[in-house]
Amino acid sequence: MNDQKKTNASIYSDAVAVIPGGVSRNTIFHKPFPHYVAGAKGCMVTDIDGVERVDFANNMASLIHGHAYPPVVAAVTEQLKRGTAYTLATEIEVRYAELLCNRCDGLEKIRFVNSGTEAVMAMIKASRAFTGRHKIAKAEGAYNGTYDYIEVSQVSSPDNWGELDHPNRNALAHGTPPAVLEDVIVYPFNDVERTLRLLDENASDLACVLVDPIPHRVGLFEATSGFVEAVYAWTRKHDVLMVFDEVITFRTNFGGKQADYSVKPDLTALGKMIGGGFPVGAVGGRADVMDVMDPNKNPLPLPHSGTFSANPITMTAGYVAMHDFDEDALLALNELTARTRTSIDEAIKAAGIPMSITGAGSMFRLHPKTTAPVSYREAFQGKEEKAIMTRLLDHMFYKENIIMVNTGTCMFSTIIGEKEADRLVDGLTNAFKVIGPDLKQLYER
Amino acid sequence: MNDQKKTNASIYSDAVAVIPGGVSRNTIFHKPFPHYVAGAKGCMVTDIDGVERVDFANNMASLIHGHAYPPVVAAVTEQLKRGTAYTLATEIEVRYAELLCNRCDGLEKIRFVNSGTEAVMAMIKASRAFTGRHKIAKAEGAYNGTYDYIEVSQVSSPDNWGELDHPNRNALAHGTPPAVLEDVIVYPFNDVERTLRLLDENASDLACVLVDPIPHRVGLFEATSGFVEAVYAWTRKHDVLMVFDEVITFRTNFGGKQADYSVKPDLTALGKMIGGGFPVGAVGGRADVMDVMDPNKNPLPLPHSGTFSANPITMTAGYVAMHDFDEDALLALNELTARTRTSIDEAIKAAGIPMSITGAGSMFRLHPKTTAPVSYREAFQGKEEKAIMTRLLDHMFYKENIIMVNTGTCMFSTIIGEKEADRLVDGLTNAFKVIGPDLKQLYER
Repeated sequence: MNDQKKTNASIYSDAVAVIPGGVSRNTIFHKPFPHYVAGAKGCMVTDIDGVERVDFANNMASLIHGHAYPPVVAAVTEQLKRGTAYTLATEIEVRYAELLCNRCDGLEKIRFVNSGTEAVMAMIKASRAFTGRHKIAKAEGAYNGTYDYIEVSQVSSPDNWGELDHPNRNALAHGTPPAVLEDVIVYPFNDVERTLRLLDENASDLACVLVDPIPHRVGLFEATSGFVEAVYAWTRKHDVLMVFDEVITFRTNFGGKQADYSVKPDLTALGKMIGGGFPVGAVGGRADVMDVMDPNKNPLPLPHSGTFSANPITMTAGYVAMHDFDEDALLALNELTARTRTSIDEAIKAAGIPMSITGAGSMFRLHPKTTAPVSYREAFQGKEEKAIMTRLLDHMFYKENIIMVNTGTCMFSTIIGEKEADRLVDGLTNAFKVIGPDLKQLYER
Repeated sequence: MNDQKKTNASIYSDAVAVIPGGVSRNTIFHKPFPHYVAGAKGCMVTDIDGVERVDFANNMASLIHGHAYPPVVAAVTEQLKRGTAYTLATEIEVRYAELLCNRCDGLEKIRFVNSGTEAVMAMIKASRAFTGRHKIAKAEGAYNGTYDYIEVSQVSSPDNWGELDHPNRNALAHGTPPAVLEDVIVYPFNDVERTLRLLDENASDLACVLVDPIPHRVGLFEATSGFVEAVYAWTRKHDVLMVFDEVITFRTNFGGKQADYSVKPDLTALGKMIGGGFPVGAVGGRADVMDVMDPNKNPLPLPHSGTFSANPITMTAGYVAMHDFDEDALLALNELTARTRTSIDEAIKAAGIPMSITGAGSMFRLHPKTTAPVSYREAFQGKEEKAIMTRLLDHMFYKENIIMVNTGTCMFSTIIGEKEADRLVDGLTNAFKVIGPDLKQLYER
């Protein structure tokens, strides 16, 4: 690495020569170039130009205590000296498994992996191994990682989504095996009647129904109790598993979003914040289902391993982060987020623009829609709406020095205070002025 | 965590209550219990009982400089203070991509992910996206991660492997979608004639032929030049990609194992050592193929992201580790490994037992076979052979305090010296005495 004055543009120009699009993650892709971080502390991120921004994205909801959280830094620094990975076990894996299982009734047993993608993949495979069936059901528009099956209809649009009674099964990646589409039932989120009808049609082949209880890409609104209870009742009747993707939503309540419902999922996928800032995923749930991975079994229904799974760095960081994200911390975080959301709602009303807000717990999402969407199809943004949201996000990033998720979403961390929340509200108030006229025009045409 | 005197047995007893089989990774499963690490330094690992062992497993080949390598510890400790993950980019990702691409001709562009499993999955998906076809071919017995397609026939055995001309397609996990089996061609490794015939039969549907150039579970012997060249020539003729799994084998030469052949793979999956001890994977290769992931494309053939992909901790550790694993370090490592292997060969001859050894670069594997196996079916171990290998490994672990991979494999690190290598040879010499009589009897019956 040379010592010449580098700019975001110059680094990116090197990047595109060796990385497709210049990034390993499309979530951080940004035109004309992404910004490169020099350092971060708490809720502030400084780029290599020295510009400091308030972070409401927290690496896509994965940093519950913000950046360089001192107790995590201290614990990981100590573990580093003792090594990062072995071909033997570590006690911290066991203690962390206990901590998570104690915290959430739905987790009787758990296994760690390296990402949310691996967690959801292991959960689907465990469901198949337990039931002996291979089809799955997932929500239209939901993002649950990069395993082919759960990519189906992730970005369905009006030109290809088909009838709501039978949403089309659209592949995300070119070259997806056609059979993948046949093995996935796409249901309309929160639509009890249509979903149950679709499940009925495939009852005998289904291994599991996958539910993200607050699906970010669907629109970041909660699964209704009625929907979750109906799916649960249906799965009991047909010996199908109900499995939750709580990779993001686990942050919304002490025992995960599932604690808000009267019924428990059979399996749950976790990720993001439970790594304390390090690569992580986990799948947990009913002991009898999880035991399909128990190597004492012969034959073993689901062989399961991974070089870096449950490595002591991730386990240490995750343990510390989740230990400190206790009920008090959670309540304070959710309360500040709720107050901020109310203020933003007021700013929207004051601006008189067609903008609405959805969310739960420590997360909310802005929609360029007059009323808050309650379905994926309502939340879907056309090209012009998307362009306006991009202008809003660019205003926030460049003018207000505030980082949000590229969907117009904020994922709070415990390190965010009133001051930063106020800055967000003020920044959005300004942004609403900038995009207001064009947004209104869009709806007046 | 309480402060009572803990034993490996007592921790494991807690573990089985919350983790299926008590481990997140079956590779470290061990009866009656796995051992728990207190700390590790260089090539030595100390368990919670204070027993110190020499490590020839290096977390399944992922620690090229052994444990707590000081330059990695120092660099990561610094990065920790600046944060571990952002919703923005970091320069170290770009510099590390450059380092790897400079080192290996087959890598024109690269993208980082979180594990070898994710790397191989992304490689398969990129192959499909580029060709628009969906079938793949993989070697019987090869382990390439936990993505369903590449699990096919991973543990085929005499009762289910079928005719060598058409090896059976066996699912690893119960409940695997039947269509997965239809979409995978299983070929006999290094068998040019049969492999080409199988490829011919599926030429028009194939996206890629996956080759691990020294497949560990097949038997840890090298793909012959003839085999690689024949597959390459065939793939050119049929517009199919030849892709390499170098997750383990990249350590065998400065530019990866592929540098030993006259032809280059179109794509390569990496992992293990390139993370410097942290969770990692990467897929790289021809620029035109890699560009299926370029988000500037519309439509984008392969959308690709990941919360922790290219996180600056992994990138920093990987950069330092690979920078220091230069040509001199590689040559010295391979030379010591080769000398050790020769000494073990002599010990085998001296013991007069039916034991043989395969391998390449900094790795070798023991086989309870009179002559070194050259195919998966030759290398396959029956129940009694396996039991004898377990006794050998237990002798090494408990009596000689030496850690090997559970297949009887050693993966050296640069921190291993003559002294430790001698200890390995002496330990094996003792082990051969212990298992010798029973092993000989097995072949005399």
